[in-house]
Amino acid sequence: MIVVNLKDNSTTKQIQFFIFTPYQIYVKVANFLYEDIASHIEEEILNGVLQLGDKLPSVRMFSKQHNVSASTIFQAYYTLESKGLIEARPKSGYYVIYQPKKYRSDIVNSNQKEIPAIHELTTDGMISHIVDLLSAENYTHLSSAKPDLSLLPTASLQKSVKSALTALGADILNYDHPSGNIHLRQSIAGQQIKLGKAYTTKDIVVTNGCTEALTLCLRATTKKGDIIISDSLTYYGIHQIIKDLGLKFIPIPIHTKTGLDLKFLKRSIEKFPVKACLLTTNFNNPTGKSLSTAQKKELVQLITKRQIPLIEDDVYGELYFGKHRPSTCKQFDTEGLVLYCSSFSKTLAPGYRIGYTIAGKFTETVTRLKRIHSLGSSTLSQQALVGFLSKGRYPYHLKKLRHTLQANMLSYCKLIYQYFPEEIYFVPPTGGYILWIAFPEDFDSVALFEAAKMQNLIIAPGQIFSMNVSHKNYIRLSFSTPITEPIEKAIEVLGSLAKALIQKSYL
Amino acid sequence: MIVVNLKDNSTTKQIQFFIFTPYQIYVKVANFLYEDIASHIEEEILNGVLQLGDKLPSVRMFSKQHNVSASTIFQAYYTLESKGLIEARPKSGYYVIYQPKKYRSDIVNSNQKEIPAIHELTTDGMISHIVDLLSAENYTHLSSAKPDLSLLPTASLQKSVKSALTALGADILNYDHPSGNIHLRQSIAGQQIKLGKAYTTKDIVVTNGCTEALTLCLRATTKKGDIIISDSLTYYGIHQIIKDLGLKFIPIPIHTKTGLDLKFLKRSIEKFPVKACLLTTNFNNPTGKSLSTAQKKELVQLITKRQIPLIEDDVYGELYFGKHRPSTCKQFDTEGLVLYCSSFSKTLAPGYRIGYTIAGKFTETVTRLKRIHSLGSSTLSQQALVGFLSKGRYPYHLKKLRHTLQANMLSYCKLIYQYFPEEIYFVPPTGGYILWIAFPEDFDSVALFEAAKMQNLIIAPGQIFSMNVSHKNYIRLSFSTPITEPIEKAIEVLGSLAKALIQKSYL
Repeated sequence: MIVVNLKDNSTTKQIQFFIFTPYQIYVKVANFLYEDIASHIEEEILNGVLQLGDKLPSVRMFSKQHNVSASTIFQAYYTLESKGLIEARPKSGYYVIYQPKKYRSDIVNSNQKEIPAIHELTTDGMISHIVDLLSAENYTHLSSAKPDLSLLPTASLQKSVKSALTALGADILNYDHPSGNIHLRQSIAGQQIKLGKAYTTKDIVVTNGCTEALTLCLRATTKKGDIIISDSLTYYGIHQIIKDLGLKFIPIPIHTKTGLDLKFLKRSIEKFPVKACLLTTNFNNPTGKSLSTAQKKELVQLITKRQIPLIEDDVYGELYFGKHRPSTCKQFDTEGLVLYCSSFSKTLAPGYRIGYTIAGKFTETVTRLKRIHSLGSSTLSQQALVGFLSKGRYPYHLKKLRHTLQANMLSYCKLIYQYFPEEIYFVPPTGGYILWIAFPEDFDSVALFEAAKMQNLIIAPGQIFSMNVSHKNYIRLSFSTPITEPIEKAIEVLGSLAKALIQKSYL
Repeated sequence: MIVVNLKDNSTTKQIQFFIFTPYQIYVKVANFLYEDIASHIEEEILNGVLQLGDKLPSVRMFSKQHNVSASTIFQAYYTLESKGLIEARPKSGYYVIYQPKKYRSDIVNSNQKEIPAIHELTTDGMISHIVDLLSAENYTHLSSAKPDLSLLPTASLQKSVKSALTALGADILNYDHPSGNIHLRQSIAGQQIKLGKAYTTKDIVVTNGCTEALTLCLRATTKKGDIIISDSLTYYGIHQIIKDLGLKFIPIPIHTKTGLDLKFLKRSIEKFPVKACLLTTNFNNPTGKSLSTAQKKELVQLITKRQIPLIEDDVYGELYFGKHRPSTCKQFDTEGLVLYCSSFSKTLAPGYRIGYTIAGKFTETVTRLKRIHSLGSSTLSQQALVGFLSKGRYPYHLKKLRHTLQANMLSYCKLIYQYFPEEIYFVPPTGGYILWIAFPEDFDSVALFEAAKMQNLIIAPGQIFSMNVSHKNYIRLSFSTPITEPIEKAIEVLGSLAKALIQKSYL
């Protein structure tokens, strides 16, 4: 590893080069000083230390007090402004324009005393109807689970495709290795280095998106009729996989405030012969919750003690808003029990259908299953990614993407505070692009879904993310689409519809 | 349908335009007169009516006798010359230079009296070792099951990719429909028109190659422990799918001379509660055998009577050497019981990983399984194909490909006649690119495989295509790679090795 320190009066930049293969250099970009200052102020705003209307210190004063150049402070303020947290008022200075809303927390249902039990998956007839609409054309989508196309580096990726065509000639038509393109696997191994793990290409299997990775890992660790553990709230596609593979499952509660209930998980594996766990450890879809590093360590200990494989879905892991990439369970896995799954669908190119798994001691089985049932992934898609990744632009793209998503999130929150009924509750997420909004307990989010659909708006009602049609009073919104006038209008309309539904229930 | 007849003195050409969608025109190219003449002469050579060394009528005489222009006869002779069937000798005329070899047929084991029984799949340890070598680098491959890259329209496909990038912009990064790109499905439906069937896009599910199509169709029609019927000799990948899905199977014998034993199949479905049939109906890999149209009709009647779904693998169907595309069982399916599976991997771009199924009454289930377990195929790969297909070049490419493959086949046969031991037996195939060669019954083709490997040559020993390690005296060769000096040398070496092994067994 080579560490380069660049320092002058105004900025400090540390670049660490991980030289991994002759083909690629992985660059980990450390924070600039202005970014540190901005995130310090940001925290104060989000914690309520700095409140709506508060004036920030003048650039000159701040610069003098902390012995940093004025341009650094300007850059910090500019960053906060671009996120919609502060604004410059002519001849007056910078003011806080954002305030996290305080909500009544009594509407949050906490099921702390629930007893672990095997649940039946309810019929998915209603779900498929809604799921079909989630990708239907001619609607305004407020709950899209894919990155908005405007956030993706289209031009660079197109260039990579063209370069690959020229470089490879007829070979681009050939089968690639069943486990995936060797350079792509090198790149994926390189990304894991920043999480402190060194893998070889043999540890990695490239799949048809994260979906296929999850299916293959479940098939490698379980058989029909086995009991598994999974998030009680999760992407409906995961429920469908579990159901289709004929697995029994114990849903682990995710509390709106505290996240995944590890104690419940512990009681579950003590009580039942659980064959595998399948959990989204960072920015769970739909709740946005992550396990803390301590919780991840604890979880790995728990499963290691009982030798239960853990399929870790980390598809949103790179979309963190904080300073550091969140940890993974895979980091703490010493016995190859964690089957790590992710993809490039949430960050680069959903349509390329490229995901991967690092399946530990199950790698051989997963490799075999991939070869048998799909023979390998698209050479063209893989080569396009290889070209893009080899240029070292991915870390920069991700940084920009995270910044935009966080700014989007703050804008959406503001509009929701403005237009939605008082009675809602939600915790602004620290990554991903999903908002999980609770309404009062008797609220019917399918009624809201139907009312919104009449206005050509699509949202996702909470129960489609639950294995047992709970969370009927929740909705999932996405903030991946940048705010435009029609989007603001849509949020306003949705707010009115929700208010009307709440009022109606009082009559 | 618009039929255009072009006729002048020398050529007759009939072009039928099937106008199917606003996006594509499907062109069915009928035979030119010179082609009809050429294939008539070809038949006479292959049947032994015209023999090695025979002189063909002079162009002038032929032209006069049949009242066709001299240029038509020249074209016919040129076609035969390009296939290696005849040669021009200066100042003398055209001579037959090919002779199909007569073999002793007593070495062909016929198991006509075998009784239907459920077979255990043997361990595939040995098979994986060999299968890994079938795609290993740094060897000369004489048994490749993919089209040689030199036979594919690389430039046109590359152009299509570039056009798709320009036309679609960021949309190329987006998810496509889980059932596949709508224009691609229109094209696939269009191809079926020439088989006399009209499908809509809703009947078609695009898959990750034919492999995924077969897996999905098996999963849609069977569950673990069910009994299915399959070719006794088939692509080892199909055995692995059957084994992995936990299915029991009855292998239907394929006789080297007469092909699939339909009587045996009938007895099998009478005796056992068979849940599905999985058969390659045209140019079976490795035997090269097809069912006749009459047999296909009979098969469909048999399965319809008992309502058993038939998964029809037609991945080689377009690679016919005769005048007409062979029929399919799907053509005669009136109740939606045939799940037709094919791909573009053997004809256009193996690495694109694009296959499809027309699954009849199982379409909804297959669609659901595709969506759940892989969410859709690569947008990029699909768009590249759409671009190529929409230009209407596919029929022309196929025609050229078929011609080249047939010419290759004849060249390979010649070399095999020249260098291989007298004791072999094989039937030159009428399509595909695979030769299935029988040695005397005590011959050990794995010994030949090992000996060849030492010389850096890879062939496929017969038993890897058998579910129960039979056919130990067979090898599979491929004639997809055009003959070059190293290939001729390789065949010579292989012949010597085989001769040495046979001699050794006499000592």
